[in-house]
Amino acid sequence: MSAPGNRQRLRDIDNTGFGSNSSVEGGRLINPDGSTNLSKQGIPIWERISVYHSLLRMNRSYFFLVIFLFYSSVNIFFAVLYFMTGVEHLVGGDGAKNYFEKFTEAFFFSSQTLTTVGYGRVAPSGLITNTIASIESLVGIIIFAVMTGLIYGRFSRPRAYLLFSPNILIAPYQNGKALMFRTATYKNNHLTDVEAQVTLATHIKEHGKTVTKFYQLKLELTKINSMALSWTIVHKIDEESPLYNCTKKEIDDAKMEIIVIVKAFDDHFSNIVQQRTSYTHHQIIYGARFLPMFERAHDGSRTILELDKINAHERVEFPVSVA
Amino acid sequence: MSAPGNRQRLRDIDNTGFGSNSSVEGGRLINPDGSTNLSKQGIPIWERISVYHSLLRMNRSYFFLVIFLFYSSVNIFFAVLYFMTGVEHLVGGDGAKNYFEKFTEAFFFSSQTLTTVGYGRVAPSGLITNTIASIESLVGIIIFAVMTGLIYGRFSRPRAYLLFSPNILIAPYQNGKALMFRTATYKNNHLTDVEAQVTLATHIKEHGKTVTKFYQLKLELTKINSMALSWTIVHKIDEESPLYNCTKKEIDDAKMEIIVIVKAFDDHFSNIVQQRTSYTHHQIIYGARFLPMFERAHDGSRTILELDKINAHERVEFPVSVA
Amino acid sequence: MSAPGNRQRLRDIDNTGFGSNSSVEGGRLINPDGSTNLSKQGIPIWERISVYHSLLRMNRSYFFLVIFLFYSSVNIFFAVLYFMTGVEHLVGGDGAKNYFEKFTEAFFFSSQTLTTVGYGRVAPSGLITNTIASIESLVGIIIFAVMTGLIYGRFSRPRAYLLFSPNILIAPYQNGKALMFRTATYKNNHLTDVEAQVTLATHIKEHGKTVTKFYQLKLELTKINSMALSWTIVHKIDEESPLYNCTKKEIDDAKMEIIVIVKAFDDHFSNIVQQRTSYTHHQIIYGARFLPMFERAHDGSRTILELDKINAHERVEFPVSVA
Amino acid sequence: MSAPGNRQRLRDIDNTGFGSNSSVEGGRLINPDGSTNLSKQGIPIWERISVYHSLLRMNRSYFFLVIFLFYSSVNIFFAVLYFMTGVEHLVGGDGAKNYFEKFTEAFFFSSQTLTTVGYGRVAPSGLITNTIASIESLVGIIIFAVMTGLIYGRFSRPRAYLLFSPNILIAPYQNGKALMFRTATYKNNHLTDVEAQVTLATHIKEHGKTVTKFYQLKLELTKINSMALSWTIVHKIDEESPLYNCTKKEIDDAKMEIIVIVKAFDDHFSNIVQQRTSYTHHQIIYGARFLPMFERAHDGSRTILELDKINAHERVEFPVSVA
Repeated sequence: MSAPGNRQRLRDIDNTGFGSNSSVEGGRLINPDGSTNLSKQGIPIWERISVYHSLLRMNRSYFFLVIFLFYSSVNIFFAVLYFMTGVEHLVGGDGAKNYFEKFTEAFFFSSQTLTTVGYGRVAPSGLITNTIASIESLVGIIIFAVMTGLIYGRFSRPRAYLLFSPNILIAPYQNGKALMFRTATYKNNHLTDVEAQVTLATHIKEHGKTVTKFYQLKLELTKINSMALSWTIVHKIDEESPLYNCTKKEIDDAKMEIIVIVKAFDDHFSNIVQQRTSYTHHQIIYGARFLPMFERAHDGSRTILELDKINAHERVEFPVSVA
Repeated sequence: MSAPGNRQRLRDIDNTGFGSNSSVEGGRLINPDGSTNLSKQGIPIWERISVYHSLLRMNRSYFFLVIFLFYSSVNIFFAVLYFMTGVEHLVGGDGAKNYFEKFTEAFFFSSQTLTTVGYGRVAPSGLITNTIASIESLVGIIIFAVMTGLIYGRFSRPRAYLLFSPNILIAPYQNGKALMFRTATYKNNHLTDVEAQVTLATHIKEHGKTVTKFYQLKLELTKINSMALSWTIVHKIDEESPLYNCTKKEIDDAKMEIIVIVKAFDDHFSNIVQQRTSYTHHQIIYGARFLPMFERAHDGSRTILELDKINAHERVEFPVSVA
Repeated sequence: MSAPGNRQRLRDIDNTGFGSNSSVEGGRLINPDGSTNLSKQGIPIWERISVYHSLLRMNRSYFFLVIFLFYSSVNIFFAVLYFMTGVEHLVGGDGAKNYFEKFTEAFFFSSQTLTTVGYGRVAPSGLITNTIASIESLVGIIIFAVMTGLIYGRFSRPRAYLLFSPNILIAPYQNGKALMFRTATYKNNHLTDVEAQVTLATHIKEHGKTVTKFYQLKLELTKINSMALSWTIVHKIDEESPLYNCTKKEIDDAKMEIIVIVKAFDDHFSNIVQQRTSYTHHQIIYGARFLPMFERAHDGSRTILELDKINAHERVEFPVSVA
Repeated sequence: MSAPGNRQRLRDIDNTGFGSNSSVEGGRLINPDGSTNLSKQGIPIWERISVYHSLLRMNRSYFFLVIFLFYSSVNIFFAVLYFMTGVEHLVGGDGAKNYFEKFTEAFFFSSQTLTTVGYGRVAPSGLITNTIASIESLVGIIIFAVMTGLIYGRFSRPRAYLLFSPNILIAPYQNGKALMFRTATYKNNHLTDVEAQVTLATHIKEHGKTVTKFYQLKLELTKINSMALSWTIVHKIDEESPLYNCTKKEIDDAKMEIIVIVKAFDDHFSNIVQQRTSYTHHQIIYGARFLPMFERAHDGSRTILELDKINAHERVEFPVSVA
C-alpha cells in the first residue's frame, strides 16, 4: 500500500479557505510569520490597505521613523506657508536677513506651533499668519491624538509571543513514528486554554494537473490548560494519518506544507490571542527527537525554561520494523 | 407541487428579531450596509442617539469637519467672551483700533489658549480675563482628550472589511441548482473561523393579509478555517430548500430578501468581527455562474486575488430537467 | 393543589450566587439598574472601591464636575506653593501689591503651567519656583493622560442600551397564561445573538424561618438572532412553571422578585454586552397584555419603533377556566 | 486500601502544561499571585520581557516613580545638550554667571520644552539650539502619548479583583468530608457566569524518582450565575476523589499543591476575566469549617458582605466513622 494510496483513502478537507487550485510552484501557502502568501489586486491600494493595521504591525524603528518623517513634513509644509506669506509677520525674531535665515525662522516657529510649545519669542501677527498658526496648532493637536491612538494600539495589540521550533521532526513515538514540533511563550505573558490545529497541505497530480489537498492532522493533545513550560505538539503517524508510510522523498515531491494555528487565552490582555506559522518540507527532519528544554534551578525552588533550546534535537535511527 | 407549498411544508423560524407583520411594501428589512431599515421614535433624539457611535461610524471627511467646526465654535465662543469683557485686558497685542481688529485679536488669543500653544505675546491680565483663559485652556485639554478617545475609537473599531458580490446567483450545482454569492476581505486583515448564516425573508399572503416568513438557508459549508482567498457561499436548492421549484416570478412576487451575517475572528484585533448585508430580489440573477477571481503570479511564487472580479459571472442555461 | 405545592415539586436552583438565607425583609436582591443590593465591609474603602470603575459609571455631569474640582484643587495647591515661596520669583507680573493680588497672580500662573498653555508673560525665575513649575507641568501632563484614559474608557465602555418595560404582565397566552415583559434597544446600536435568562426569587417560610428559593423560568424563546425591533420575552405559566396556579396574593406574600439578564453581541463594539434588571412583585400586573409598539412608516418604506410605547398595555379579564 | 492506591486507580491528567518531571523540592508550581514559579533563559532579557506588560502589572507607586525618573532623565539629557551647545543661545535668561546657574537654566528650559509649557521668557535662538528644542518638544509629545497609552492600559486592564480565603479547609460535608475554600470580589465590580477549575498536584515516588501527577478535582458546583455574595467552592472527598482516605501526613509528604483558576464575565469591562491562585499543603487546615461572612443590614434593606471574614473558620472534630 503506497502512501498516496493512504492519503486517497482519507478524506481531505475543503474548509481551509484555500482552493484546491491555489497550489503554487515553488511558493508556499502561509509565510513563516503567519500571513498568507497572497497579494490582492483590482482595487486601488488606498482601499486595499488599512493604514492603521500597517502602522501597528510595522517594526518599532520604522514606526518612529514614519512618525518623525510625517511630523517633519507637516512642519515644513507650514514653514513654507509662513515663508510665502511673509516672515515679517513673525514678530520678535532675530531679524533674519537672507532667505535661509528667514526659512529657518519660519521652520522653527512652525515647529513651536505644531508641538504647541509656543515659546512666544517669535509670535504671529496679522490676520493671515495668525490664521495659519491657528490651523497649525489644531493640526498639531490632531496629529498628537492620532499618534496617541497609534501608540496605544501598538501597545495593547494582543499577541501570543510564541516561539516555534524552526524544525519539525519525524521522531520515534510509541513503537511508531510521530510528527513533532515545539512551542513556548518567550515573553512574560501567560497563556491558558491553549489550542493547536495542524493542517497538512500536499500538492499532488490528479488527472494530469497539480491540485492541492488538505488534511487535518490528529494531535495527541489538542488543548492544554496552561502554557507554563514548552509544549511539544505531537501528531502520531498511524494508519489514520495522511503521512503513514510516507518517505522523505514523497514528502519533498509533494512539496508538503504543515500549517499551524495556536489559539489561547492571554491572561494579561484577557483576550484570545492567535498565532500562525507554517513549515515547508525543507524544515522537516526525518529521524530526530527533541532534547529537554527545562531544568530545575540549582536551589530547587523553581523551574528554568531554556528558550535557546527550543530546537535542540538529536538524530535517531528508526527501527527497521516501523520504517 | 408548487413552491409556496414546499415553503409551507418547511418550518419557518421566529427568532430573527423581526416580527411576522414587519413586512413593508417597497421597503427592505436590512440595508446593504447591514443596518436595519428601521427608525425609532418616542424618546428625544439625544437619548436615542449615541454621539460616540455616530462619530465612529461617520465618514472620515465628515468626522474631521465635525472636529474642525466644533473647535471653531468653542474658539469663537471664548473670543466673544474676551471681546465682551474688554480686549484691553489682553496685553501685548497690536493695539487694535476698531471692532474687527479687536475681535480678531480676541479670536487668535482664544485659539492660542484653546490649543495650549500660548505664545504669550498676547497674554491675559486682570481677574476676569485670566479666569476665562484658565477655563478655556482646561476646556481645550478636555476637548483634546475627547478627540484622542474618538480617534482611537475609530482606529480600533473591529471591522471585517468584507466585500460581497453585488449579485446573488442561482447557478447550476451538482445536477441541480444552488444559490451562490461570493465574499472576500479587501484589506490587509486576516480572518479565521469564518462563519456565515443566511436567512430568507418572504412576504406572503395569508388569510388575506401579507405576513413575513423567515427560513434558515442550509449552506454547503457554514464555516471555513481561514478567509485566505474568496469564499463562495453556496445554498443548494434541493427538496429541503424553501426555494425548491421556485421561479424567478415567484421570487419577485414574494419580494424575497436574503439576509447574510458573516462572523469571524480577526487576527489583528484579536476580536470577533461581524458584517451583515442583504440582497433584495432585484439582485438575484437567475441562471449565471461565477468566474474564478484568483490566479497564480507569473513567477509562481504567490497567489493573486483579483478583487474587481468579485461579481464576475457568466450566463448559463439551466438543463430543462431540473428547471 | 396549592401553588407552593407546585413550587416544592419543582427543583430550585442553587447556582445564582445568592445564598438561601440572603432574603431580606422589605429589600430586593437586584436593583433596577442591575447592581446587587449589597454592601461590602471589612476592608478599607480605598481597597474596596475601584476609582476607575466609579468614574466610568458616574453620571456625565458629575464626571465633569469631578474633573473640574480635581483640576482646581491641584491648581490651588501649586498656587499656594508659589505664594509661600514668594510671588516675586514670578517675573513679568502686574506688580501685585496686596495678598489677594499676589495669590491671584500665583493662581493664574499655576493654571497656565498646569494646562501647559504657558503664555510666559508671567514666568518663573529662581531655583525653587522653577522646580515647582517643572513638577507642576509634569503633573499637568499626567493628569491630562489620566483624563484622556478616563474619557476614552467612558466612551468605549460596551453597553447594551436596553430599555425594559417598567411592568411585567401576566397575560393570556395560548389558552393559558404567561409572564411577559418587553425590551428594546433605545440607541443606534445593533445587537445580535440576544439571549435572555430569567430567574424567579421567592421568599418562603420553611421550618419557621424565611428562606429564599430560586427558580429558572423557562422561556418560549431564549435567543433571537437580532434585536431589530422590540422583543417580548415570554414565560408560559404551565405545569412546569413555579408560578402555576399562583394568585396575585401569593405573589405578593412571597415577595417574589424576577431577575432578568440579557446578553448580546454588540455589532459596534464587536463585544459581548450584558444588562440586568429586576422586577419586584409591585411591578407585576395581573391580567394585562401588551399593545403593539411598531408600525409602518406612511410611505411604507421602513418600520417605526415607538419607544414610548414599551409599556403600553391594556387590562384583560382572564377566562374563568384557566384562572 | 491506601490513599496512593486510590490515586493510582484514578486517571491523572496530562494537559496541565506542566511536565511530570517539573516537580521541585521545596518549591511550588504556581505562586499565590497566579504566576508560574518559573524563569526563562536563553534569549536576551529585552526580547524576553514585554516592557508594556511589566509597566502594567507594576505597583502604582513604582509606576509613577518610573515615569518621574524617565522624564527626569530625558530632561537632563537635553539639558546637557543645551549646556554643551552654549547657554548663550537661550536668550532672555537671568544672565547666568557660573556653571551651576548655566546648567540650571538649561535644565529648566529643557523642562519647559519637554512638557510643551514653553513660557518663552527663556527661548532658543540659533540653528543648533532651535533644532534641539524642536526635537525635544517632539520627544515630549511622544513620551506623553506613550504615557497616556500606559495609563489607559493600566486603567482598562480587565481584572477579577477576587479575594481568596488564605486557607483551604478539609471540613465535614454530607456525612463525609470536603475540601473547601472561599472567594469573593472585593471591589465594586460584578462578575457573572463564574467558573472554577481546581487541579491537585502531587509529587510522588515512582520507580525511584519523584514525579508530579495532576488530578482534576470534581466540584459540587463548577459554575454560578453571579458572584453576588461570596462563593464557597467545594470538592467532596468521596471515592472518586484523589484525596479519599488521605491523612494530613500524606498530604504533607506528597507536598500537595492545589491550583485554582476562576474565570468569569466582568460586567463592567464586558470581558472575560481570570484569576489564578495556588494553595500549598501548608495552607490546608484539616478539620475546620467556614463561618458565615454575610448578614442582613440592621434595617433589613440590604445584605452586608464582611470581607474581613473571608477566612473565618472554626475547628471541628471529624466523626470517627468517616476519618
